[in-house]
Amino acid sequence: MTFLLENQSTSAPRAGLLQTPHGTIHTPIFMPVGTQATVKALSPEELVGLGAQIILGNTYHLYLRPGTEVIGRFGGLHGFMHWHGPVLTDSGGFQIFSLAGLSKLSEEGYAFQSHLDGGARHMLTPERAIEVQLALNSDIMMCLDQCIAYPAGHDEALRALALTTRWARRCKARWQAEPECPNSLFGIVQGGMFKDLRSRSAEEIVAIGFPGYAVGGLSVGEPKALMLEMAAHTLKLLPTDAPRYVMGVGTPSDLVEMIGLGADMFDCVMPTRNARNGQLFTSQGILNIANARHRDDTAPIDAACGCYACRHYSRAYVRHLYQAKEILAHRLTTIHNLHFYLNLVKEARMAILEGDFERFRRDFRSQQQNGAENDCQ
Amino acid sequence: MTFLLENQSTSAPRAGLLQTPHGTIHTPIFMPVGTQATVKALSPEELVGLGAQIILGNTYHLYLRPGTEVIGRFGGLHGFMHWHGPVLTDSGGFQIFSLAGLSKLSEEGYAFQSHLDGGARHMLTPERAIEVQLALNSDIMMCLDQCIAYPAGHDEALRALALTTRWARRCKARWQAEPECPNSLFGIVQGGMFKDLRSRSAEEIVAIGFPGYAVGGLSVGEPKALMLEMAAHTLKLLPTDAPRYVMGVGTPSDLVEMIGLGADMFDCVMPTRNARNGQLFTSQGILNIANARHRDDTAPIDAACGCYACRHYSRAYVRHLYQAKEILAHRLTTIHNLHFYLNLVKEARMAILEGDFERFRRDFRSQQQNGAENDCQ
Repeated sequence: MTFLLENQSTSAPRAGLLQTPHGTIHTPIFMPVGTQATVKALSPEELVGLGAQIILGNTYHLYLRPGTEVIGRFGGLHGFMHWHGPVLTDSGGFQIFSLAGLSKLSEEGYAFQSHLDGGARHMLTPERAIEVQLALNSDIMMCLDQCIAYPAGHDEALRALALTTRWARRCKARWQAEPECPNSLFGIVQGGMFKDLRSRSAEEIVAIGFPGYAVGGLSVGEPKALMLEMAAHTLKLLPTDAPRYVMGVGTPSDLVEMIGLGADMFDCVMPTRNARNGQLFTSQGILNIANARHRDDTAPIDAACGCYACRHYSRAYVRHLYQAKEILAHRLTTIHNLHFYLNLVKEARMAILEGDFERFRRDFRSQQQNGAENDCQ
Repeated sequence: MTFLLENQSTSAPRAGLLQTPHGTIHTPIFMPVGTQATVKALSPEELVGLGAQIILGNTYHLYLRPGTEVIGRFGGLHGFMHWHGPVLTDSGGFQIFSLAGLSKLSEEGYAFQSHLDGGARHMLTPERAIEVQLALNSDIMMCLDQCIAYPAGHDEALRALALTTRWARRCKARWQAEPECPNSLFGIVQGGMFKDLRSRSAEEIVAIGFPGYAVGGLSVGEPKALMLEMAAHTLKLLPTDAPRYVMGVGTPSDLVEMIGLGADMFDCVMPTRNARNGQLFTSQGILNIANARHRDDTAPIDAACGCYACRHYSRAYVRHLYQAKEILAHRLTTIHNLHFYLNLVKEARMAILEGDFERFRRDFRSQQQNGAENDCQ
């Protein structure tokens, strides 16, 4: 994997080219979440049409169902799900933490019970997390880390980051044991909401050395200002010549702010999940399609949007589909929201290359603020 | 509306061209069911890609939600749902019969309570059924008829057909009151499972005179042989120069047999509904995708099929999506099943034009029989 920065300015926002075994990614980039080997409601062709360059798969879900044995028969996720671009997979740790039944953490790894098959017992070690991701053949694998809830005390955060560091070493060793492995592995910085611990974690993870780095443990319930403060502090500590991925973030404005801080990659279920709940992102702010005032509105979701849904369908029709619980509702709203996210990072990238990111951020902020007020009428 | 027969042989199976305000339909044709102004799980572009030439909308559902006032704002169903080909709508009578709460039949029409809005009261008269369909701007409207359950006695079936005839006159009068109406109206033959009543109904409806005729009241629970006997008897009584539509039919083999009897048009929820239940139609018979033996099967649903799902995805992947309740499962299985139905009538049509329908029917029967046995393993 190689990473080239296209803008050489000294300012934080970066535009880069990240080369992976399945293609080159133009950063900053948003990665649609394809938890169960599908980005919910969409086909791979639709993702390509939306300009998605890389998607995220969830190791925990895929390990449990259909299992790596099945996906291995197809040489990995790409062949299994008919997506031929780059794939990033998480390590599974976050889902064990948030979804699994009784899970027990030890130096060895996570012992957990599946949330699916009535409690079958499984063990995920750092080595196993890499092996599963190798079977998925993800272009970018993530180290197993220990996630903590918010708020957490300094002691707890310290213990978690120390374990995360020891696991990162084991992950790297397992990865390096693969002869000529084209798949890449990212390290994850933890440290809770403590700057000293974020510094220590960044130092330790960078010392181990990875082709890319992620900021984990954000967007877990903390106030927005705290999230941005932690991200700003951590991103500054990461090497400039490696891609920086802020995990699980965020709202459109989170993305714009994080790009301003020098982040390159993002993933979040928000555009896809909110779409299925009828909450749509527009140039004028949030629009709730279930709202009765859209009942006979012949206008598109967003007149400024060029997505398939906005080109061909009215708010009245999308609302009707949503009220009638039709599958096409989920398709159209998902297309719209992902288009909004992918277009947003694309425009941010163009602004960076034109040396005009500050103007872009200012325009975005004022547009969204006005829109948010409008929607409250 | 004009209807031209392309084959002039004396045999029953027919290939025709049916011209409507939104395009020409090549018969025999299967009409995918788009109950709530969407063929469940699919986009209009996908329907076009599948070769769908006309779709069916359900007047009862659309009248209740979103209502004709909303659809009227778009000039009808076409603009509302972004489907620009022909549309046929039923009259709403069958759904009142099968879905509505307390419904009361009188000479005037159906008084019924909605199954949706907690029992609001509505009245559907023959005139109102036409007015609603005019607002939907369906290319082919259907007369309001009285449906009866199976089994029903001779007296009950006689009363229902007599009312259906009186209502057909009122429907025609309301339709003819529209100046220069380009939309067409089909009459419906009822008569239960009694040949004398079918004859009487056909005679009365044909005497009123419509651009096309439907055989109603079949596929309501009667044995297959009885259904075919009634269809054969009724179809023979209908004018050869008008299209003949067998409503709510049926399985793939029902379609082939009915085409053999001279039917031109069909609709059925089976391909779309069964798709969502994981039951797939293949050249080798029925395939249940949930079956554990497909768990790691890298083969497509049907190796003989050229649909999008079979070109790009394995049984293992489709089964995984189905087990994981992913929307893409419904999309792929619906595409596959509709492709099977639409391809079947297309091949039947080609065989008719080549004067080779008997060979086609024989091959189809033997293939499906072998397949059905295979699937029971």
